[in-house]
Amino acid sequence: MSDRTTAPVPPRLQAWEQRTEVPLFVAGMVFLTGYAVRVLAPADIGPVRDLALALVYATWLLFAVDYAVRFRLSGLRAWSFVRTHWLDAVVLLLPLLRPLRLVQVYTAVQKRREQPRLSLYARVMAYASLTAVLLGVSAALAVYHQEHDAPGASIRTFGDSVWWACATLTTVGYGDAVPVTFGGRFVAVGLMACGLALLGAVTGSFSSWLVQVFRREDEKGPPGDA
Amino acid sequence: MSDRTTAPVPPRLQAWEQRTEVPLFVAGMVFLTGYAVRVLAPADIGPVRDLALALVYATWLLFAVDYAVRFRLSGLRAWSFVRTHWLDAVVLLLPLLRPLRLVQVYTAVQKRREQPRLSLYARVMAYASLTAVLLGVSAALAVYHQEHDAPGASIRTFGDSVWWACATLTTVGYGDAVPVTFGGRFVAVGLMACGLALLGAVTGSFSSWLVQVFRREDEKGPPGDA
Amino acid sequence: MSDRTTAPVPPRLQAWEQRTEVPLFVAGMVFLTGYAVRVLAPADIGPVRDLALALVYATWLLFAVDYAVRFRLSGLRAWSFVRTHWLDAVVLLLPLLRPLRLVQVYTAVQKRREQPRLSLYARVMAYASLTAVLLGVSAALAVYHQEHDAPGASIRTFGDSVWWACATLTTVGYGDAVPVTFGGRFVAVGLMACGLALLGAVTGSFSSWLVQVFRREDEKGPPGDA
Amino acid sequence: MSDRTTAPVPPRLQAWEQRTEVPLFVAGMVFLTGYAVRVLAPADIGPVRDLALALVYATWLLFAVDYAVRFRLSGLRAWSFVRTHWLDAVVLLLPLLRPLRLVQVYTAVQKRREQPRLSLYARVMAYASLTAVLLGVSAALAVYHQEHDAPGASIRTFGDSVWWACATLTTVGYGDAVPVTFGGRFVAVGLMACGLALLGAVTGSFSSWLVQVFRREDEKGPPGDA
Repeated sequence: MSDRTTAPVPPRLQAWEQRTEVPLFVAGMVFLTGYAVRVLAPADIGPVRDLALALVYATWLLFAVDYAVRFRLSGLRAWSFVRTHWLDAVVLLLPLLRPLRLVQVYTAVQKRREQPRLSLYARVMAYASLTAVLLGVSAALAVYHQEHDAPGASIRTFGDSVWWACATLTTVGYGDAVPVTFGGRFVAVGLMACGLALLGAVTGSFSSWLVQVFRREDEKGPPGDA
Repeated sequence: MSDRTTAPVPPRLQAWEQRTEVPLFVAGMVFLTGYAVRVLAPADIGPVRDLALALVYATWLLFAVDYAVRFRLSGLRAWSFVRTHWLDAVVLLLPLLRPLRLVQVYTAVQKRREQPRLSLYARVMAYASLTAVLLGVSAALAVYHQEHDAPGASIRTFGDSVWWACATLTTVGYGDAVPVTFGGRFVAVGLMACGLALLGAVTGSFSSWLVQVFRREDEKGPPGDA
Repeated sequence: MSDRTTAPVPPRLQAWEQRTEVPLFVAGMVFLTGYAVRVLAPADIGPVRDLALALVYATWLLFAVDYAVRFRLSGLRAWSFVRTHWLDAVVLLLPLLRPLRLVQVYTAVQKRREQPRLSLYARVMAYASLTAVLLGVSAALAVYHQEHDAPGASIRTFGDSVWWACATLTTVGYGDAVPVTFGGRFVAVGLMACGLALLGAVTGSFSSWLVQVFRREDEKGPPGDA
Repeated sequence: MSDRTTAPVPPRLQAWEQRTEVPLFVAGMVFLTGYAVRVLAPADIGPVRDLALALVYATWLLFAVDYAVRFRLSGLRAWSFVRTHWLDAVVLLLPLLRPLRLVQVYTAVQKRREQPRLSLYARVMAYASLTAVLLGVSAALAVYHQEHDAPGASIRTFGDSVWWACATLTTVGYGDAVPVTFGGRFVAVGLMACGLALLGAVTGSFSSWLVQVFRREDEKGPPGDA
């Protein structure tokens, strides 16, 4: 998703990226699951929470190794690599943003299966809504983590947090459940920014798709043809 | 509205779909009316409420029969049919989503009447806003059903529920009337998701239509022509 | 704004419409001013309020006469006329919606002045935002009229009402000032519906215009050219 | 950003504008910083606040001088100049709106560096989100200035004000932090109006960019090619 179209990508880096895309996505899901267990499990099940924490750290290490390998294979200087791969750097620091890399995984999987593809707009919608859902779940977890024991919080259960995430992603914003801590609001601003763009893409593609459906129907001509 | 454009549809299935579209839409309206009476009628008018419930079940049975017939006529395996007709399966389980199939009915009716058609954007707007209104009414009924006797609810009358549905569909989200139960919030999330896409289609088409109107006016040339 | 493009308009009707557009727009503004004075003037200035009411009724009569004349000149049957001019019928019943006819006035004025025109997107933006502002003012007046002495109202001054209208038109919807009466909510729903579409048109055109500006700059070529 | 494309710009004015764009942008940033220090610094650090105020007035004077010079060089009559440069006049009176002129600075800087450019949509997104962020910061400062000691205010710290600005720009509008004074609401309405259009541009460009990415991937052809 970074703008690498301008400079040619070394073939070894390209091969590495193609081979690691799916494993990294799986690692991202493991990270998310581990984080969810860590945040949601009751405090008295110590072992489960410790295992979850271990998973979180292990996958994080994997991401760091991948970033280092890609830096090596790219043949770029450190600063130049960070500048052209800034989204990857952000994703490394905030692994809950992993879903943003989903588009590459999706492409890779599609290529291997060679199945009949969805139409252009359907794919954009599928990608954008999937990313939005994953980001929403990540944000709901993180906000619940920050807020559930803050004084004066209105987000007390994970259900409240999911409800808040839905109302925020769709920009409805009822205001019955709102983050009050700095951490919670920081996550919220991130969700608003990403969510707006992704939801805009869903809406825009749906609109284009609907116009296309109605147009195609016109071209079929008079009733006799159908 | 499912992506059936890729595989050819057997002629008998096509004939069945064309013949049943309007009756099924009428059945959908009967279902909605029955549900509305069931939810809104005061508890002391027993017979009316029983009749309404009977209507709801009868129409639901109709939908199930139609789904079974279409599965048979499609000649597909069970899993394959469910996968390519997933929207129909969802609509079967949640008949309040029936309005989403409206686009097919609309097309069928248009074809029979052979009347001068509206412009492309006007049709998209008409379809999207009609669907949005029907979904809004369904959601208002369902939320009222869930919320009106919940403790601490802010949606107490059907009027509140309609007001809430309007504020949600347009993403204004004042927050003066908000669902508090799990059921109510579940319906709300569905309304937000569908509503956003539909309203985006209305907005986008209106915008394209307005640009078209102003452009056409340009092409008419200097004042002398008009 | 009704879809009269399909059927030919009789020349006498066309002449009438061209001649009355600007006077009717002025009458609409007089109506709005009269209504504003009636609603906002303190109760103890009897004569001013009576004059305002007289203006409101007089302009309303004008609109009715215009509708009748246009019906006559159209040569259509009553039902057919109402069906093809439904927007005009709505505007006749709810004269606060008059701004929606603004596009025709705007066109008529532009044609007479023969001045260098704005670009396509600039005109759409100008039209949509002007209409949105006028509808917002009308809605603020009507809501203030309904709400200012309702029990438990949060809209108590005209300032509150304008603030509410801005938050509603932009779909921000804070919820600190919200209509609570049936009348107020009815107006609010109308404002949301119209506002969404109009604001969507402003946003969409602005976006297209910005893309156009950046594209034109590309075509200017390398720095040496500028 | 004003519509100067219709009339030819005198070469001396053009030269002046090219030479002053970057310095004026820097002056705008100095103005914003000075205003921020003035508003946020505790009342007991007198000298710092006085220096900040001096900076604010000095940069304001610079803007006025620039406007006067440009008026002179344009060779237009006063009224005609104000009419065609109305955005510049607004920006002169409300220097917190300076970021709106950012597009010209951005273009000027791009031209000098001759670096490989971003794609069209990426540039629109970059410009619109940068402008939105700067306007958001300006609005947060101005609202904090108006609200922090108002009776009954819900915006009490600068953090609250930034949180409010984010929720407003994205049209989420929770309503937990809302301006209550006339000044604060005035700023808020301005932010809503500008923010809506800018965010719409970000969303629209992102959507177009995503469709482009998916389309390009189609054109690459079957897996063997990649």
